[in-house]
Amino acid sequence: MMFVKLTRGSACKLACGFKFRSHNSSSKFRICQALSGDVTDSDIRIQGWVRSVRAQKEHLFLHVNDGSSLQPLQVVATSELDARGVTFGSAVDITGSLVKSPSKKQSVELHAKHIQVVGECSPVEFPFKIKERHSLEYLRQFPHLRCRTNIFSALLRLRSEASSAVHAFFKENNFVQIHTPVITSNDCEGAGELFQVEPAGREPTPDAGNQHFFSVPTFLTVSGQLHLEVMSGAFPAVYTFGPTFRAEKSQSRRHLAEFYMAEAEISFARSLQDLMAVMEGLFRATTEHILTCCAEDVALFHKYVAPGRREQVDHMLSKKFHVISYTEGIDILNRSSQRFSFPTEWGCDLQTEHEKYLVKHCGDVPLFVTDYPYDLKPFYARDNQDQPRRTVRNIPHALAAVDLLVPGVGELCGGSLREERLELLRTRLARAELEDTYGWYLELRKFGSVPHGGFGMGFERYLQCVLGVDNIKDVIPFARFSHSCPL
Amino acid sequence: MMFVKLTRGSACKLACGFKFRSHNSSSKFRICQALSGDVTDSDIRIQGWVRSVRAQKEHLFLHVNDGSSLQPLQVVATSELDARGVTFGSAVDITGSLVKSPSKKQSVELHAKHIQVVGECSPVEFPFKIKERHSLEYLRQFPHLRCRTNIFSALLRLRSEASSAVHAFFKENNFVQIHTPVITSNDCEGAGELFQVEPAGREPTPDAGNQHFFSVPTFLTVSGQLHLEVMSGAFPAVYTFGPTFRAEKSQSRRHLAEFYMAEAEISFARSLQDLMAVMEGLFRATTEHILTCCAEDVALFHKYVAPGRREQVDHMLSKKFHVISYTEGIDILNRSSQRFSFPTEWGCDLQTEHEKYLVKHCGDVPLFVTDYPYDLKPFYARDNQDQPRRTVRNIPHALAAVDLLVPGVGELCGGSLREERLELLRTRLARAELEDTYGWYLELRKFGSVPHGGFGMGFERYLQCVLGVDNIKDVIPFARFSHSCPL
Repeated sequence: MMFVKLTRGSACKLACGFKFRSHNSSSKFRICQALSGDVTDSDIRIQGWVRSVRAQKEHLFLHVNDGSSLQPLQVVATSELDARGVTFGSAVDITGSLVKSPSKKQSVELHAKHIQVVGECSPVEFPFKIKERHSLEYLRQFPHLRCRTNIFSALLRLRSEASSAVHAFFKENNFVQIHTPVITSNDCEGAGELFQVEPAGREPTPDAGNQHFFSVPTFLTVSGQLHLEVMSGAFPAVYTFGPTFRAEKSQSRRHLAEFYMAEAEISFARSLQDLMAVMEGLFRATTEHILTCCAEDVALFHKYVAPGRREQVDHMLSKKFHVISYTEGIDILNRSSQRFSFPTEWGCDLQTEHEKYLVKHCGDVPLFVTDYPYDLKPFYARDNQDQPRRTVRNIPHALAAVDLLVPGVGELCGGSLREERLELLRTRLARAELEDTYGWYLELRKFGSVPHGGFGMGFERYLQCVLGVDNIKDVIPFARFSHSCPL
Repeated sequence: MMFVKLTRGSACKLACGFKFRSHNSSSKFRICQALSGDVTDSDIRIQGWVRSVRAQKEHLFLHVNDGSSLQPLQVVATSELDARGVTFGSAVDITGSLVKSPSKKQSVELHAKHIQVVGECSPVEFPFKIKERHSLEYLRQFPHLRCRTNIFSALLRLRSEASSAVHAFFKENNFVQIHTPVITSNDCEGAGELFQVEPAGREPTPDAGNQHFFSVPTFLTVSGQLHLEVMSGAFPAVYTFGPTFRAEKSQSRRHLAEFYMAEAEISFARSLQDLMAVMEGLFRATTEHILTCCAEDVALFHKYVAPGRREQVDHMLSKKFHVISYTEGIDILNRSSQRFSFPTEWGCDLQTEHEKYLVKHCGDVPLFVTDYPYDLKPFYARDNQDQPRRTVRNIPHALAAVDLLVPGVGELCGGSLREERLELLRTRLARAELEDTYGWYLELRKFGSVPHGGFGMGFERYLQCVLGVDNIKDVIPFARFSHSCPL
């Protein structure tokens, strides 16, 4: 679809990145290209980092990785070559002949003619050690260096591809991408967990209006939903995909202060089915993409981090997602012999222990839970009393909300139809004393209002689910949480 | 490449969005589909907003838009139909026969059989008036409604496509996308213009360590560069594309407190040419994509907002980008007969007036300016004294930095090679008394350091340049600037 034209330099091939004649007259290749078998130039140049060094009689065997693939390229050097400074972790620039390898372990290897150590690395001071498999906990101490390990560079390639797949899913379904703002004057959801924003070195003055940089108190967004709803008055479907924030004092395996959400809003949606179809489509499309396009990286996680996870993921994809109502969920919990720490009365919120139980009970596939009691969901969720619904018994105040629970994680997505009726919404806002603050939100319902609904999917939780990673801090490049913001 | 599987509902076609049998047994279509000529079902259902109403004898003519295209669909209704409430701005759900139009103004039109007003709109209270062309300034007063105008919905479709093209460019060139953090403890660039972050309702305490939520003072990022540089120790090329922040007290046409930047970092880059090739490639690929895929929306801007801009853009794309050194730039300014407000001595920073003059002088094409005096660029820019360079005279302390200036806007991109040599970097950090703060940054150079460089492109400025939009507030969904953060 798109072609990149590079007007500078000479030959340019982009299959696996930039290729050009380098000054020393050998063609430069990424290692994924060298390994692919497509390279016809036998005389090539590669650049990367040494992942292993093995001296054997007359020869030195190196594994060089440049991050373009999990697999390194084997480099063979004779003792005539100057290989001082070639240590684990050092950066090298190597020219040589790419030849068929005599070993079964790799198809090709590079017979070095020249090795330049670009950046040295002291094996004593470098915190990662050759041939050692460091734990994810250990790596977390080195946020500026952990990308140099196999597991975390695999994670970053996977995250990049999954992100790309999320965008591709929405684009192929003609959602318009909206860059919803990070800084907002909304403070509707969970006022206790908001980050506030003011210029550095200025004391915030909570009341005196004009002393705020923006004249009003401003916060880091907890969701782009309300801003997407603005767009639901003009487009068939919109989405946003970016960072959201919670000032939760949690250091748990499930929470970050800054995390990514993919959120969608669909105009003229009249039933939860309309939303569930998109949620399921997003999960399937993204997962199928990374299983196919990052097979090697995924396999690393399923081999060393979460054995057995691959079978679970294949199981999830092979089955239809399950749907139950909140009321059915409560019934299941109350019929269970398991003892829960949190109450399971009708009207109580589902906790992670409940979510995980329900998912297991329903066959270890992703599970939609629909139709929540009035008090469990925010003011914008649509009151569904006017619509007879098959899955719900005659319960008071059913709200048209739906959560998607997944194996290993619990809640992955939360969504709802939104209250599009001016008078009903006004009443609910008035009850919460928010009518003035949300004057603009009411106006969306005053002028050409349409039924609509949407959802948000936690991107880190998605990665945790598919890769089987237990701690959310291990699926994001730079984790921010209570008492921790290095770099 | 990707297929979306929707397991719920029946027939599903995704060419221009979801298509499915709706409950009233007519197929639902987006308006772009109805207009495409591909629709074979004559009996269809559309949903959208009324953009014009014209009563003529026995017939009512409506233009209905659903945001899937700039063009509306003409709907013809006979007087037998109940069309009460069908006003400018109202939301409608219409079934009818799609037929060839007798008029030359459109190829098809919908003969309505049923019209349902889904959401009313009072023509008196709605701030936009039928057949009036409101100014961009006027629309800015209604951030929650302006997406309902042709010009702003065109902007949002364009922005979405341009964003998608930016991602596609980097993906096709095998850059790994890194989600660099918004919250950071770095405060290196322009300490006076940072936003600080603390939980709402808490007084920030600038010194007492543990009283901060993150134990240290934290800020909104001004650039993802340093975090991308972390990744330059493990990947051939990385990028980030997201919001960045400046607490500048500016309400100018050129500045926002929250704006988007695409930033890239390329490992083993040894010359500014390596960076310029990517900058030019990004500009060309993105521009060619939106000119092709959003021709109608682009034309609206070039017709009503910036007449003559299209020719300028075509001119930019037809020529090679120009390259001069900073020193040559200063010479050109000093030879000019134009009087500038700001000084043009060697060593002074280039101001917007200078940038625009240089671009014009060099033939109104994008212009790279390279090799800056030591004091004009930050501590991380690479000292290039060791490399003889063709374009530069023998000037003291040339830094390997490059800016890209474009017609109508001035500075669009800024980039540099980064100082990868441990001792040189340590000296510069020590001079700025930042050695301790940037211990982690020095460690990147201690372990397997590689030459590298990168740049950032202001996304809003890019859109301003291509569309000819004078005010930056008109190219972002929700503008945040000093004293203004509605919604």
